[in-house]
Amino acid sequence: MANYKLTLRYDGAAYHGWQRQKNCITVQQVVERALKKVAKERITVTGCSRTDAGVHAKKFVCNFQSEMTVPCRKMPLAMNRMLPYDVNVTGCEIVDDDFHAQFDTKWKRYVYIVDNGEYKNPFTAKYAYYYPYKLNLTAMRTAASYIVGTHDFAAFMASGSNLKGHTVRTVFSLNVKRRANEVIFTIEADGYLYNMVRIIVGTLLDVGTGKTDRHSLPDIISSADRKRTGFTAAARGLYLTEVEY
Amino acid sequence: MANYKLTLRYDGAAYHGWQRQKNCITVQQVVERALKKVAKERITVTGCSRTDAGVHAKKFVCNFQSEMTVPCRKMPLAMNRMLPYDVNVTGCEIVDDDFHAQFDTKWKRYVYIVDNGEYKNPFTAKYAYYYPYKLNLTAMRTAASYIVGTHDFAAFMASGSNLKGHTVRTVFSLNVKRRANEVIFTIEADGYLYNMVRIIVGTLLDVGTGKTDRHSLPDIISSADRKRTGFTAAARGLYLTEVEY
Repeated sequence: MANYKLTLRYDGAAYHGWQRQKNCITVQQVVERALKKVAKERITVTGCSRTDAGVHAKKFVCNFQSEMTVPCRKMPLAMNRMLPYDVNVTGCEIVDDDFHAQFDTKWKRYVYIVDNGEYKNPFTAKYAYYYPYKLNLTAMRTAASYIVGTHDFAAFMASGSNLKGHTVRTVFSLNVKRRANEVIFTIEADGYLYNMVRIIVGTLLDVGTGKTDRHSLPDIISSADRKRTGFTAAARGLYLTEVEY
Repeated sequence: MANYKLTLRYDGAAYHGWQRQKNCITVQQVVERALKKVAKERITVTGCSRTDAGVHAKKFVCNFQSEMTVPCRKMPLAMNRMLPYDVNVTGCEIVDDDFHAQFDTKWKRYVYIVDNGEYKNPFTAKYAYYYPYKLNLTAMRTAASYIVGTHDFAAFMASGSNLKGHTVRTVFSLNVKRRANEVIFTIEADGYLYNMVRIIVGTLLDVGTGKTDRHSLPDIISSADRKRTGFTAAARGLYLTEVEY
């Protein structure tokens, strides 16, 4: 019995997120289905993160225990033959028995893409959030600088989440840049509360349009009040791009 | 009655090309359907090109005659409200009565994207042609240089096309570059034979793998023999990106 670490990427547009659910299709499900065919045994995989419906991953890590005989170097091609076009394995290795894809993450990087063009780009309709309003990037960057650091991020957690007293996270960096008609957010943190990235993006967009004052961020953070932060930006603009152990 | 020039862009993945057809959905059809609602009259549009099923356009021009009262500056938003997410109007202007979107083109630019990564990128499954073989770009560029110029391109026309004696075209430029895992072809010409870009790409890929000698291109061109050129690269990698009048 060995512990395998599988690296993959997926276009999440057609999936109800990573985590297995009843009555709807998830990425975990299609990965386990392919794995069953390749490994010739029923396998449950553990993902590094529960991505929401419509969220994408340019790098996603999961692990599983198996007695399969397929060598690691053959796994990507063997798996990709069984997987749909929008999910794709890029690597496989045997790791320590105690490696856990979810609990052992040191940090993760997310990218969020906003289509800030005058007209909605048909090529990114499922891959970016269309927001055609004029944005003050300098103000957004100042606001972002207040988010970097170790804070109680309760104000940036979807209401209804049940994590009281465990809402402190460390954001290592939060960058905002423009590339042609897109505004791109890149965030690195040791962990994320439910919807945290999407609420940060919504809050920074409110700063960009002037609805929220850039210097009110420290106050908003310390309020721990979800009603003080901005809207939850759409899932389709969000990408998990790096997971470090 | 005025002559309108409409600029649009579309993700062609879901369409059987531009040109109206029976029993399958085309871009022309959805544009005309939206136009009927916006202009309150039945309108036939003339496209700058017949793109094939699955081909994309980052810029596409069409024209139509109409007595509508909608001002040009309101057309993009009015049309986009009626159009599906994968087709999108970016501009509208009144032009000379004799402007014809197809016959008046001076040149057009096409881009072709090859996914040359080890594993198929799930994000470009419908937007690039997956070809994971090692490519010699220097050889491909040399071969490309022979294609630039005024030639009889009969060898680069889908067999069965009926254009005998009218197969001379001028290719102004043909560039091949690598960007991360993608190989990108950019071609500008005064006109194109049926499948010409896709056959040029297939031929250059054969040069890239060594199947075809880079210096055999002048010979292949002058043979005017479709059997001497390479395969027709898949439609999904092809983008019309510029049309000049």
